[in-house]
Amino acid sequence: MRPLDFRSDTVTRPTAGMRKAMAEAEVGDDVLDRDPTMDRLERRVAGLLGKEAGLWTPSGCMANGIALMLHLKRGERFLAPAQAHVLGSELGTAAWLAQGMPEALPWEAGPGRITPMQVWRAAGAPGPYYTLRTTLLCLENTHNFAGGTCLSAAEHRELVEQAQGRNLKVHLDGARLWHAAAAQGASLDAMAWGADTVSVCLSKGLGAPMGSVLCGGRDLIEDARRIRKMLGGGVRQGGVMAAAGLEALDYLPRIPEDHEKARRLADGLRSMGFKAPVPETNILLVPVPDAPSALAILEEARVRVLPVGSALRFITHRDLTLADVDEAVERIRGISDRLVTTWEGVRPMI
Amino acid sequence: MRPLDFRSDTVTRPTAGMRKAMAEAEVGDDVLDRDPTMDRLERRVAGLLGKEAGLWTPSGCMANGIALMLHLKRGERFLAPAQAHVLGSELGTAAWLAQGMPEALPWEAGPGRITPMQVWRAAGAPGPYYTLRTTLLCLENTHNFAGGTCLSAAEHRELVEQAQGRNLKVHLDGARLWHAAAAQGASLDAMAWGADTVSVCLSKGLGAPMGSVLCGGRDLIEDARRIRKMLGGGVRQGGVMAAAGLEALDYLPRIPEDHEKARRLADGLRSMGFKAPVPETNILLVPVPDAPSALAILEEARVRVLPVGSALRFITHRDLTLADVDEAVERIRGISDRLVTTWEGVRPMI
Amino acid sequence: MRPLDFRSDTVTRPTAGMRKAMAEAEVGDDVLDRDPTMDRLERRVAGLLGKEAGLWTPSGCMANGIALMLHLKRGERFLAPAQAHVLGSELGTAAWLAQGMPEALPWEAGPGRITPMQVWRAAGAPGPYYTLRTTLLCLENTHNFAGGTCLSAAEHRELVEQAQGRNLKVHLDGARLWHAAAAQGASLDAMAWGADTVSVCLSKGLGAPMGSVLCGGRDLIEDARRIRKMLGGGVRQGGVMAAAGLEALDYLPRIPEDHEKARRLADGLRSMGFKAPVPETNILLVPVPDAPSALAILEEARVRVLPVGSALRFITHRDLTLADVDEAVERIRGISDRLVTTWEGVRPMI
Amino acid sequence: MRPLDFRSDTVTRPTAGMRKAMAEAEVGDDVLDRDPTMDRLERRVAGLLGKEAGLWTPSGCMANGIALMLHLKRGERFLAPAQAHVLGSELGTAAWLAQGMPEALPWEAGPGRITPMQVWRAAGAPGPYYTLRTTLLCLENTHNFAGGTCLSAAEHRELVEQAQGRNLKVHLDGARLWHAAAAQGASLDAMAWGADTVSVCLSKGLGAPMGSVLCGGRDLIEDARRIRKMLGGGVRQGGVMAAAGLEALDYLPRIPEDHEKARRLADGLRSMGFKAPVPETNILLVPVPDAPSALAILEEARVRVLPVGSALRFITHRDLTLADVDEAVERIRGISDRLVTTWEGVRPMI
Repeated sequence: MRPLDFRSDTVTRPTAGMRKAMAEAEVGDDVLDRDPTMDRLERRVAGLLGKEAGLWTPSGCMANGIALMLHLKRGERFLAPAQAHVLGSELGTAAWLAQGMPEALPWEAGPGRITPMQVWRAAGAPGPYYTLRTTLLCLENTHNFAGGTCLSAAEHRELVEQAQGRNLKVHLDGARLWHAAAAQGASLDAMAWGADTVSVCLSKGLGAPMGSVLCGGRDLIEDARRIRKMLGGGVRQGGVMAAAGLEALDYLPRIPEDHEKARRLADGLRSMGFKAPVPETNILLVPVPDAPSALAILEEARVRVLPVGSALRFITHRDLTLADVDEAVERIRGISDRLVTTWEGVRPMI
Repeated sequence: MRPLDFRSDTVTRPTAGMRKAMAEAEVGDDVLDRDPTMDRLERRVAGLLGKEAGLWTPSGCMANGIALMLHLKRGERFLAPAQAHVLGSELGTAAWLAQGMPEALPWEAGPGRITPMQVWRAAGAPGPYYTLRTTLLCLENTHNFAGGTCLSAAEHRELVEQAQGRNLKVHLDGARLWHAAAAQGASLDAMAWGADTVSVCLSKGLGAPMGSVLCGGRDLIEDARRIRKMLGGGVRQGGVMAAAGLEALDYLPRIPEDHEKARRLADGLRSMGFKAPVPETNILLVPVPDAPSALAILEEARVRVLPVGSALRFITHRDLTLADVDEAVERIRGISDRLVTTWEGVRPMI
Repeated sequence: MRPLDFRSDTVTRPTAGMRKAMAEAEVGDDVLDRDPTMDRLERRVAGLLGKEAGLWTPSGCMANGIALMLHLKRGERFLAPAQAHVLGSELGTAAWLAQGMPEALPWEAGPGRITPMQVWRAAGAPGPYYTLRTTLLCLENTHNFAGGTCLSAAEHRELVEQAQGRNLKVHLDGARLWHAAAAQGASLDAMAWGADTVSVCLSKGLGAPMGSVLCGGRDLIEDARRIRKMLGGGVRQGGVMAAAGLEALDYLPRIPEDHEKARRLADGLRSMGFKAPVPETNILLVPVPDAPSALAILEEARVRVLPVGSALRFITHRDLTLADVDEAVERIRGISDRLVTTWEGVRPMI
Repeated sequence: MRPLDFRSDTVTRPTAGMRKAMAEAEVGDDVLDRDPTMDRLERRVAGLLGKEAGLWTPSGCMANGIALMLHLKRGERFLAPAQAHVLGSELGTAAWLAQGMPEALPWEAGPGRITPMQVWRAAGAPGPYYTLRTTLLCLENTHNFAGGTCLSAAEHRELVEQAQGRNLKVHLDGARLWHAAAAQGASLDAMAWGADTVSVCLSKGLGAPMGSVLCGGRDLIEDARRIRKMLGGGVRQGGVMAAAGLEALDYLPRIPEDHEKARRLADGLRSMGFKAPVPETNILLVPVPDAPSALAILEEARVRVLPVGSALRFITHRDLTLADVDEAVERIRGISDRLVTTWEGVRPMI
C-alpha cells in the first residue's frame, strides 16, 4: 500500500518541469556577482508582492530569522498571534538570534486571528528608559497552527495600520500567503500591503525543492543580503534552485485545487463522525481523543499526518490528487472506530 | 507638603544601622579572594532559603539574568506566569542574553497563579530534533504585577513537582519571597523548596541600598560567579554593601507591618468607593478609569504611585508609617472625585 | 574578449553531468525524513574524511559557523592561524554567533603555518574562575590568505596532538582540504586526523553549485543537524543539490591539474618580472605596488582577480584550461609595464 | 609576618574618609529618579575627562562592556593593542555580548604601543557587502599587561585622529588613566581627547570599594544607562557608593607617590640582579624563569603578586607605603637566589 503523505506540503517532489529548469539554468556566482536566474526570481516575487526587492534564502526559517534580525534589537519586544511559527517552531531564533522578546497575542477574533485593538493595547505607549519597547508586529497568513486560517486583505490592512499608528514595523510570515490570496480571491500585493518585509515559501505548496524569498524595500533587502551571508545562506550558482522556484510559481493558479482537496477530505471525515471544520485553505486540523495513538493507527493504513496539540494536521498539496484524498478517506473509514472514542475540543499546542 | 512615595519598595533609604554597618564593615577583594562580609551574607541567605550557596549581585535583574543564563541555551523554551518580571520588565534579557524563548502561562488559578496541569501541558513531551525544547519553569513569588499575590508553600511545591516530572529546571524569582513567606506563615526554605535557583532582593522591602542574592547548589553558584564577572557584577570591597544587606535582614520579622499598611490603605480607598482588593502582601493594585491622569492628580497631592496597566500600584514599605498611610488616604479623599468617573476591571499590562 | 576569471574557484559552473544528476536525483524531505541522496553524499564524504557522520550545509560559512557553535560557549577562546577565514572572512560569526573570543596565532613556521609550541603556549593552563578559557583550535588547510599553503599530514597531526594535550577541541576548516591532500599526496582521512569536526566545500574547486559538508562524530553531527535547522540551513528536497555534490567529488583525481595551472601561471608571471612564488596548490598571491589600480588594469584585459592586501590573488579551477592560463599570461604581458613600478613584499591583509 | 599585597591596586581598603562619606551620603532611587550623590559623581568625573556626561557602573568590566555594546554590532570588527584588557581579560564579552570581532594590533611602537599607521592599515577601506567592517578602535591607557606603559596626550591624539580619518569610533579603557595623566603631567581631558567613550575606574588605585564611570556624549550615555539596566548594573541608593567614589578622587594628586613606590621597588629588585625595567607608572613586570614557582616562593615570604606570562606583576597602591616597599625588597632579597636561575625575556601572555 503506497503511503499517502499529508504531513506537510513540503514533502512534494520537484516536477519534471523543475528538473528540466534546473538542468538548463543560466547561473553565476551569486555571492560575488548576483546569479542571473536568482535575480529574475527575486524580481518576479518582489513584483508579485508589490515590494521593491527580494532575496532568496534556503529556507523559510532563514527568511523569517533575517527579517527579525533586521527589525529588532536588544530590549525590544515583538507581537505575534499565539502559536505563530516564529514563536514556537523556529527554535527560538526570534529570541537568541534576533534578540527580540516575544509577546503572544491570544486569538480574540477566532482561530489565528487577532484584533487591531489588541495590537494597539499590546504595543502600548513608550515607557521610561528601563522598559522594553515594542517595535514590531509579526503576522502569519495563512496561520499554520490555527488550521490554515486566513486574514482577508482588509483585515490584514487594519492590523498593519494599527501597528503603524503605534510606530511598529510589520513583518508578514507569508509562507502560505499564496493560499491566503487564493482563498480570499485577493492579489498577493493586497495581501502584503504595508508590510515592511514579507517572506514567502517556494517549497511549501508550490513544490520547489528548497527556498523562500524575503521581500521588502531596497535598502532593507540590501541589509538582508549581508545578514544572509552571515548566517551561511549565501550560495554560489544558486540559479539552479531559482530556476526551480520560477517554475514552482506556475502552480499559483492551481492552489485552489489544494483547497478543494482539503474540503473533500473534511467532508469525508465528517461523514464518519469526526469533528472536522470546513478548512479555509489546504490545512485541516481534526481533533482526536489521543493524537499519538491516532498517528500510529493511521500509519498502519499508510496515511501520514502530524500532530498539532490534540489534533491531527492534514495538509493537502500538489503531490496528492483528489483520488488520493478519496482513497485516504476510505482507508480511514476502515479504521475510524479505532481512532474515535471520546471527544474534546481542539487545542493545538505547538 | 512632603511626598508620600508608594511607587516601589525600592525607594527606601538605608537606616542608621545600615550606614554604621557600611562604615565598619570588614572587607576584602571579592573578585580575587572573596570578601569576608560578602561571604557571611551569602551563607546566611543561602541558609535561610535552604540552599547550599549564595551569590550577591548588584541587582535583582542581574540575579535573574544569571539564573536564566545558567539554565537555558539556544533552542530552549521556558515557562513563566503571565506578566512575570522576567517576561516584561527585564528588557528582554531572558531572550537575547539567556537565549531562551518565553512562553507566558495565563493565570488560570487566579491573579498571578498557574496550575500544575498548565505546567504539565505546556512543557509537553520532547519533540523531534527540529523543535524547541522546554527546559525551565520560572516562578515569581510574590507576583508583582498580579498585585503581590503569593503562592503557598504547598502550591509552590506542586508546581515544582510537576516541572520536575517533565524534567524542567526551576528558577524562583523571589524578589519579595520575604513577603510571601510572611503572608503564608511559612519558612523561607519551604517557600523555596525544590527550586534549582532562587533570587531574593535586599533592596526591595528590606531597605538595603542595593543588592540581591542568588542561591542554589554549590556547583551552580560557582558557575554563577563566573557569569557575574562576565556581566560586570564582580565587585571588589563588596563587604560594605554586604554589611548593609545583613542589617537589612533584621527587618524580616517586621514585614507583616508592611502588609498591615497595605490593608489599611485598601480599606481607606474602599471606603471612598475605589475597587481596591484586600492585598495579600505589600502591593495594592487599584483600578482607575484613566491611569495617566490619575497619576498626575495624585502627584498634585504629593502621593506618588506607578501605573500598572489601567490600575495604580501602591507599594508599602519600611519608610512609610501607618500614619503616612492614613495621611495618604486623607489626601486622596480630598481628590477622589477627580480620580473616579467610570469603572472597569483591572487589566495590568506591563 | 571573453573574461578569464581567476577571482575564486567558486565561480565554476555546474557541469553537464551535475545538471543531469540534479534532474534525475532521488529526493525526500530532508528535514522530516532525511533525503536519500543527501544521505548518500553525507556518508560518502564522512567516509573520505574518516569520520562517523556528515551534514550538508548550503555554504562553507554555515559549516564553520555550526562547528564553532558546537565547540564554543561564552567565556571561551579559540586559536586560529592569523588571517584564517573564520577570523576575518565570516562576518564575525565566530564571535557573535558562536560566542568565542579569537586569538590569532602569527605564522611562525612560514605563510599560514603555526607551530605546536605556539598552540601549547597560547592554550595556556587553566586560570582562575574569572579568566577566559581556551578550548578550541581552528586549523585551515589549505590556508587561503596565505596563498593556498598546505600543512602536511604530519604537521597537521602534531598540531592536533598538541591541542589535545591541552584539552582543546579541534575544528579543521578544510574548504580546500581536497587541494591539500592532493598536493601532499596524502589521503583525506590522514589530513583530517584527530579533528573533532572538519568542513569541506563542494563548490570551491569541485564545481558544485552550492554546498559544504561538516563531518565529525555521530552525536556531534546530530547536534549540528539541530543547529543547522536553527540557522535556516535545513532544506527539503536537498537531494538535487546532493546529487550535484556527489558528481563534484568525481573531480577529486583531477585536482592536481589545477595546481599545474597555478604553477604555469606563476612561471609566466615570473618570466615578466613579477615576484610570484611557486604555488603549493591552486592559489597564487602576486605582490604588486598598487593592488586597486592593478585590478582595474587587469580588468581592461578581461583578466579578473581579487586583491588580498597588497597582492593579487589568482585562483585556478576546473573552468579554466591550461590554454586559458597561457592566454591570461599573454594578456598580462601586454600590460605588465603598467602593473609594475615599485616592489615591496606581500602583506596579505584580509 | 603580615602580607604585602602587590597583586593589584584593587585590593585597597576604603579609607576612614570613604567610610564616613558612605555613612552620611545623601541618596535616592537611582533607577527611578537618579540618586543625587551619583549625579554629583558622574558630573564631576565627566568634567575631569572633558565629556558631557558620565555613568557609574559597578565594575570596569561593565563599563567597557557597555561601551563596546554602544559602538559595535554584528559583522563589525574592532582594533585594540595586543593584550588589551578587553581582549583577554573580560571573558570574551567583546565578542559574545557586544558582538564585535577583535583584531589585536602588535606593539610596533614599544610595549603596549601601536602606531597611527597600524590603525590606518588595519582599519582598511570599506569592502563589499560580505566583508567585516572595522568600526572601532579601543585604546588602553595605561596598558596593564604591557607593564603600565602610557601614551602621551600627543600619541593618544594621533591615534584618535587616524581612527577618525577612517571613520572609526574610539573607546578608551582608562581604568588607570589617572596614572597615565600623572606620569605624563597632562590633564585628564587631554588624555581623553576625541574618544567617544572613556571608562575610568574608582577602585583601581584610587581606593573606592567598587565602581567605574563611563563618560561620553550625552545621548550616548543615555543609551548606556539603558544598557546598564539590561546588564543588571542599575542600583537603587547608589549614592553610598558614589560618596566613596567622590572621596576616592581626592587621591588623584597623590598618584605620583605610587609611581615612586614602583620605581623604588624596581631599583631594589635590580640591585639584586632582576631585570626590572624602570616602571612608567604603578605597574612593574619582572621576568622570572618560572613564574608559578616564583609565586609560591614569594608567598612564603608573604609578598603577594600575580603572574603575567613569564613575568611577575607588582602593582603599587595607596595601601602600601614606601616602607612596605622597602620591606618587600628586603624579604625578596632573602629568597632571591631561589627565584632566579636562568634568564629570558618577558613575554606577558594573559
